[in-house]
Amino acid sequence: MRMYDVIRKKREGGELSDAEIAYFVDGFTKGEIPDYQASALLMAICIRGMTERETVTLTDRMARSGDTVDLSRFGDLSSDKHSTGGVGDKTTLIVAPVVASLGGKMAKMSGRGLGHTGGTIDKLESIPGYRTALSPDEFLGQVGRIGISVIGQSGNLTPADKKMYALRDVTATVDSIPLITSSIMSKKLAAGSRNIVLDVKVGSGAFMKTPEAAEELAREMVKIGKGCGRRVAAVLTNMDVPLGEAVGNSVEVVEAVRILKGELRGDLYDVSVTLAAELVSLFSGESRETARGRVEDAIASGRALSVMREWIAAQGGDARYIDDVGLFPRAAHRADVTADRDGYIVSMDAERIGEASVILGAGRASKEDEIDHSAGILIRRKTGDSVRAGDVICTLLTNRPDSVPAAREQIVSAVGIGGSRPDEKPLVYGIIS
Amino acid sequence: MRMYDVIRKKREGGELSDAEIAYFVDGFTKGEIPDYQASALLMAICIRGMTERETVTLTDRMARSGDTVDLSRFGDLSSDKHSTGGVGDKTTLIVAPVVASLGGKMAKMSGRGLGHTGGTIDKLESIPGYRTALSPDEFLGQVGRIGISVIGQSGNLTPADKKMYALRDVTATVDSIPLITSSIMSKKLAAGSRNIVLDVKVGSGAFMKTPEAAEELAREMVKIGKGCGRRVAAVLTNMDVPLGEAVGNSVEVVEAVRILKGELRGDLYDVSVTLAAELVSLFSGESRETARGRVEDAIASGRALSVMREWIAAQGGDARYIDDVGLFPRAAHRADVTADRDGYIVSMDAERIGEASVILGAGRASKEDEIDHSAGILIRRKTGDSVRAGDVICTLLTNRPDSVPAAREQIVSAVGIGGSRPDEKPLVYGIIS
Repeated sequence: MRMYDVIRKKREGGELSDAEIAYFVDGFTKGEIPDYQASALLMAICIRGMTERETVTLTDRMARSGDTVDLSRFGDLSSDKHSTGGVGDKTTLIVAPVVASLGGKMAKMSGRGLGHTGGTIDKLESIPGYRTALSPDEFLGQVGRIGISVIGQSGNLTPADKKMYALRDVTATVDSIPLITSSIMSKKLAAGSRNIVLDVKVGSGAFMKTPEAAEELAREMVKIGKGCGRRVAAVLTNMDVPLGEAVGNSVEVVEAVRILKGELRGDLYDVSVTLAAELVSLFSGESRETARGRVEDAIASGRALSVMREWIAAQGGDARYIDDVGLFPRAAHRADVTADRDGYIVSMDAERIGEASVILGAGRASKEDEIDHSAGILIRRKTGDSVRAGDVICTLLTNRPDSVPAAREQIVSAVGIGGSRPDEKPLVYGIIS
Repeated sequence: MRMYDVIRKKREGGELSDAEIAYFVDGFTKGEIPDYQASALLMAICIRGMTERETVTLTDRMARSGDTVDLSRFGDLSSDKHSTGGVGDKTTLIVAPVVASLGGKMAKMSGRGLGHTGGTIDKLESIPGYRTALSPDEFLGQVGRIGISVIGQSGNLTPADKKMYALRDVTATVDSIPLITSSIMSKKLAAGSRNIVLDVKVGSGAFMKTPEAAEELAREMVKIGKGCGRRVAAVLTNMDVPLGEAVGNSVEVVEAVRILKGELRGDLYDVSVTLAAELVSLFSGESRETARGRVEDAIASGRALSVMREWIAAQGGDARYIDDVGLFPRAAHRADVTADRDGYIVSMDAERIGEASVILGAGRASKEDEIDHSAGILIRRKTGDSVRAGDVICTLLTNRPDSVPAAREQIVSAVGIGGSRPDEKPLVYGIIS
């Protein structure tokens, strides 16, 4: 087989065979196929597309390109949740213990944050003592015992995706449904769970800016995940504004704990319950409605909170921080951003607010940056709320007082105030299963 | 400017600006833009195409990427002929002295052969003493004095094309009208002639297999050449069968000399006269018919032959070989390929016959191979001719007797014999100007 012929076939709009896709993925991963041939093929795929069968094969082969996690000991109960990336998105901290409290097995590897979206691992590290690196035996043992473990990515999972993504990133071939799908789903397949719920974010703070684009991607991911033998559902959720009221690290853990304690409701509660119910429905076979009832009960009864406590303690974290969130250190400097006139908040650009939190120290602009776990933003008013001049919209938290002016400028440019109440947008655009 | 944005624009079917095209050509030539980005853009161009303006800019920028030949001293008389590559194509050896004898200035750089098509420089080197490397002063001085010089490519002409072609060759991006056009025309522009006639070959032995595909390419090349300020015409000629009766090196020189001596007519004469007339018409402004009359007269009167003699002698070649073609050394071995039944020759695959000549030693399979100038093939019967079993179709000439069986096999597989006379195909499909 020659790479030349594979490229040519796709250039002409042909359908690649399983053998041709395997040849490309394996050869590229091993470095036998040079970047300039790979980028030509990736561009042809971007423009010509791929059939469902091609995308299934590509995804499956990428998933097998490196290490894979074997969760077969958990049978049909292994469960995973993936978000396409949002601002203030701490749903994993809520969904994982809820699902574990209902019998699901959440063996989760999470990433660190980069740019305007935070990472679950960074958030968890704001709890003193929490260990994000466990041996495979510790990891799987803990999942077996208490139903949940969340660790940082380890091992050499999907090297094909890492290499391919790095190349796509510099050759304008990121924006392709089959390539995005195979990138996301290959990682999920390699991570081993039988049940996968995808939280596909839609809006100004998300990769997918419109519900239509998000739905197209979601349908493809669900189809391909099923084609690869997993149970998959996708929830389309709003990311025009940050999710919940906190953006940062310890502030997000605090918010998640307060949800599990029943102290808070709102958009974060609703999205978390929807995601958890979808996952419970997948592994239990129960209806969406029944699953939702069980999820709400797991929160109301405090069972999910108690699983969270157990989980944090099992991974070396100081569980007293869960019992009393007042123990988390506070940022030394607080600054309010206020409304400059009366009116309604008509827009709140989630991406810019995420960037403001990075400026304050809560995230990384580049991989080497250190995170300040107490920095962040508390959001007091959101799109649709009425405000009077002088009302606090956000509170900035930081240990770097010199970062406040730039962060404030970001927030001011992110928030639009108008004369009339804007049309309400759905929080959940739909569920695809 | 970022290459990423240029690639993205073309991927989405946008029209690149002059600045974007210049940025790509210059950056790629200097090695500042890596191959993997260039191949992604080339693939996007292949699939999305280019507008006329984009192709003119690309061609012009590639032409200026390295050295250029300044033929301005010859005013409107500088003339060049380019063939897209055929088997048995020795028209340059005929057209160049004819045009020079009529006042045109043929300052021609030619290539060596590779694969199944021969190169003019290899053919000329079969004349003892012929120098293919002249200094720029010698080259231009000779053109000024006797109207013609043909040398090998020297200097660093169109490095952008060399680099781009090498990349296209391994990324399945050769087959694109704007990229083929810019590759061919940028070299012609850099070579400096004001008048350019393109011989676009059509058929089994050519890159373009159908008249429709050839016409599309020809129209584009003429349009782009004119857009770059040159006078350009294209002639579409048949390459289902080799042109003329000899395939090789010295045998092709002999055939060209015999045409100029008036000893031979046929397809080679007709194609050569058509090409020469087109060139004469371009630089003189005369009608095609008038120019054709002058061309035929230049041959009939012997003036073109006498210019050829002068040219060969001026470049150090032994002109006695022109006076008496019997002086050329003969290959040590001759073998006839005969018809195995009565009938008509219905097909004669030019590409395979070219490959057979390479096997016999007349061409190069790889760049390092040495050429045997006396090897080749004499074609005794062509498509449309009737044959009886035992009639000689071709005579193989070689100094490597062990190559005969493989060459014979190629010829046998190249020649189809059927029961009825095939439809005659045109020799010249059309002229585009």
